[in-house]
Amino acid sequence: MDQLRQLRQAALSSDYAWKELAHLTNSIGPRPAGSPQATFAARYVADEMKKLGLDVRLEKVTVPHWVRGEETGALTEFPGMTPGTTQKVVLAALGGSTATPADGITAEVVVVGNFDELAALGQDKVKGRIVLFNVIFDKQLAATGHGGPAYGQAVIYRGAGASAAAKLGAVAALVRSVGGADYRLPHTGAMRYAPDAPRIPAAAVTAEDAEMLAYLTRQGPVRMRLLLTPKMLPDEESFNMVADLKGSEHPEQVVIVSGHLDSWDLGTGAIDDGAGVVVAMQAAQLVKQLGLHPKRTIRVIAWMNEEFGVSGGQAYAAAHKDEAANHIAAIESDLGAGHPLGFHVAAPASNLPLLRPAGQILQAGGAGLVQATEDCETDISPLLRLGVPCFGPIQDDRFYFNYHHTAADTLDKVQPRELQENAAVMAVLAYALANMPQTLERPTPRPAGRE
Amino acid sequence: MDQLRQLRQAALSSDYAWKELAHLTNSIGPRPAGSPQATFAARYVADEMKKLGLDVRLEKVTVPHWVRGEETGALTEFPGMTPGTTQKVVLAALGGSTATPADGITAEVVVVGNFDELAALGQDKVKGRIVLFNVIFDKQLAATGHGGPAYGQAVIYRGAGASAAAKLGAVAALVRSVGGADYRLPHTGAMRYAPDAPRIPAAAVTAEDAEMLAYLTRQGPVRMRLLLTPKMLPDEESFNMVADLKGSEHPEQVVIVSGHLDSWDLGTGAIDDGAGVVVAMQAAQLVKQLGLHPKRTIRVIAWMNEEFGVSGGQAYAAAHKDEAANHIAAIESDLGAGHPLGFHVAAPASNLPLLRPAGQILQAGGAGLVQATEDCETDISPLLRLGVPCFGPIQDDRFYFNYHHTAADTLDKVQPRELQENAAVMAVLAYALANMPQTLERPTPRPAGRE
Repeated sequence: MDQLRQLRQAALSSDYAWKELAHLTNSIGPRPAGSPQATFAARYVADEMKKLGLDVRLEKVTVPHWVRGEETGALTEFPGMTPGTTQKVVLAALGGSTATPADGITAEVVVVGNFDELAALGQDKVKGRIVLFNVIFDKQLAATGHGGPAYGQAVIYRGAGASAAAKLGAVAALVRSVGGADYRLPHTGAMRYAPDAPRIPAAAVTAEDAEMLAYLTRQGPVRMRLLLTPKMLPDEESFNMVADLKGSEHPEQVVIVSGHLDSWDLGTGAIDDGAGVVVAMQAAQLVKQLGLHPKRTIRVIAWMNEEFGVSGGQAYAAAHKDEAANHIAAIESDLGAGHPLGFHVAAPASNLPLLRPAGQILQAGGAGLVQATEDCETDISPLLRLGVPCFGPIQDDRFYFNYHHTAADTLDKVQPRELQENAAVMAVLAYALANMPQTLERPTPRPAGRE
Repeated sequence: MDQLRQLRQAALSSDYAWKELAHLTNSIGPRPAGSPQATFAARYVADEMKKLGLDVRLEKVTVPHWVRGEETGALTEFPGMTPGTTQKVVLAALGGSTATPADGITAEVVVVGNFDELAALGQDKVKGRIVLFNVIFDKQLAATGHGGPAYGQAVIYRGAGASAAAKLGAVAALVRSVGGADYRLPHTGAMRYAPDAPRIPAAAVTAEDAEMLAYLTRQGPVRMRLLLTPKMLPDEESFNMVADLKGSEHPEQVVIVSGHLDSWDLGTGAIDDGAGVVVAMQAAQLVKQLGLHPKRTIRVIAWMNEEFGVSGGQAYAAAHKDEAANHIAAIESDLGAGHPLGFHVAAPASNLPLLRPAGQILQAGGAGLVQATEDCETDISPLLRLGVPCFGPIQDDRFYFNYHHTAADTLDKVQPRELQENAAVMAVLAYALANMPQTLERPTPRPAGRE
């Protein structure tokens, strides 16, 4: 218990995670999968872990390499327009989108609120049109601490909207940005094409532009020119950064601390998920700083490509499948760096009493909540399916989805004190798991389903 | 008193102002001075006022015509950079800025916190560089209801920074956006060149980019490429829209209700200042709707070009100078449409007892504050200098400067209920002034100084 207290105290007075996050965001910058920056970042983190004396390796991961191009939207015809003018539509291509023709697509815009309304329009009213899915992100839900459900409700249209529209003959798809703030800021993110639908270009418009399009289409025909020039380049070789702080008694038994190193390209990936990477790095740094010797191995992982297919998480689970039983636990932070309230665990509830001591230490900083959940963070979910108990911090995410996948995901969105609090949770939890006399009861392995 | 109560009640149950604001923002769009949309908007408002039966004229105003072009910033060299990559710098040209050469300017960035720091650097360290004025907008001041002072502190660098830097040999100037929110959103606005300094390009970077540049320049040399292609086109003829609801007893005596019709080009000018225009329109609409007959003339004015030289306000004051004594009062709303707390008056404090009855009516909606001030809204300040008592609503401006001069100044930033409350203030105050038995004691005329 004293060691857990020491770790917590040390985390709260350290600027290690903050300095690492400043470097990842300001000096390295956006780290989309397949980019030179993402791979450079993996090497950078590897070097930092070597400096701490960890055993480091870069495990190869093949990642898609989609790059954004030009992206503009402008109304060419709308009720009330001043002759010879336009209204711009602020948007960002969705990750994976195809390009428009070089001179863009100009077509009428139809607005729907959900898949049923799209179906009700039918092929007659969709064919040749640009479909806007004007699905409102529930800001009240997010503001009251339910950002995840608010996101979940709306994000299905980002993922599957384009193909649903394409099946009815649409020439392009727009989705209202899935996020909470109103600063004319598009939120990008991955989309996927159904195998049985034409691949049409897809972009996220801002909440404001969605409102404007809804207003104008209620009054009469609206035509819009959409230009997107993204490219899907050949796959790239990149890496999961894996660094071991070897256990003194059971070096073969592993507790993972992790975050994902890739980000979207619009911002610099501070909350999604530089913060997760640096608090994982700091968990190891603090153990070293305090001269502690965990009984099991603490493994720092900076995952590659969470955003666009979970390549890193899947590659790791595939490569380490035979060692699954020796993975005692996996922790990932991937919901920013808001004040932590505690941690959740995807494993049988029978484990909770074993975890309470760590919770008690963390309670001194208001982070003592211990909750059992069904699911876990994306990169470690392949491990969960192999029966590994998976953990994540429970965070104040009331503002997370305001910035998520936008140009405004930058360093200043992280509060240094809250980052320290998150490092404390990661370090205390990891060390408690690494030193626990017994191991945890494991979740039932399950086959891979839809992510 | 009954009529004032009726006006207030009618305002609170009307959607007239809201519908007009939706049209100005969504259907007409951005209305920068000199643009077709701005002049089209003046004609549109004139037509709406004619529909109400007002006597309408368009008074010519010559306005500058500056148009934004491409604008990009990217770091070409910085400490820690991944070879072959860049970091983008999100920015917007300041109104009036000259263009860079067609292939941009690439130069080292130096960061200063104020004019003294610039002077301390001296010509040696400024010549050939891009100077960033990293002056922080005081969000705490703004959040506690002092948006105006917070804005005033920082905006001097937007106006005068470029020439100060140019005098020391700088090749371009950047200012940190003058505004409160952190959504990677640049805030544009007018700048002016000193007659004795070279005219160098000037842009506003976002708060996030200013922080990044401050961080990176602390670590080593930072070079940046800046491309701006704005143009200053020949002056345009445009209009103040002037519409009279004639007084029944003293038609020659005028009470102005007004807002400015021009906006910046990035957003659609909902809070700055479509809202002011539509509540002025509604003041006349409500008087007509209720069949009231004010003793003095209520004159609706939609000013042209507040943003870039106050052309409309100055042209009106010059053209109507000889009728100044018959201008009993001028009201302008130009601080958005936040909940009104009351109104302020630039006129001798001896008038306050006369104004209390209007305040008492408005107090039912929490808008009863009556305060004497020295200054007034920009477009009517030339009238104040002619001795006209000038009024404006006192508004909740805690969020105004988050959106001010940005792409996010759009319709959704106005709450329908608050717009109704503002219309109530404008209508009640205008009607009270138009029907007051006596006229107000007038402020002392003063010569024009710096605006």
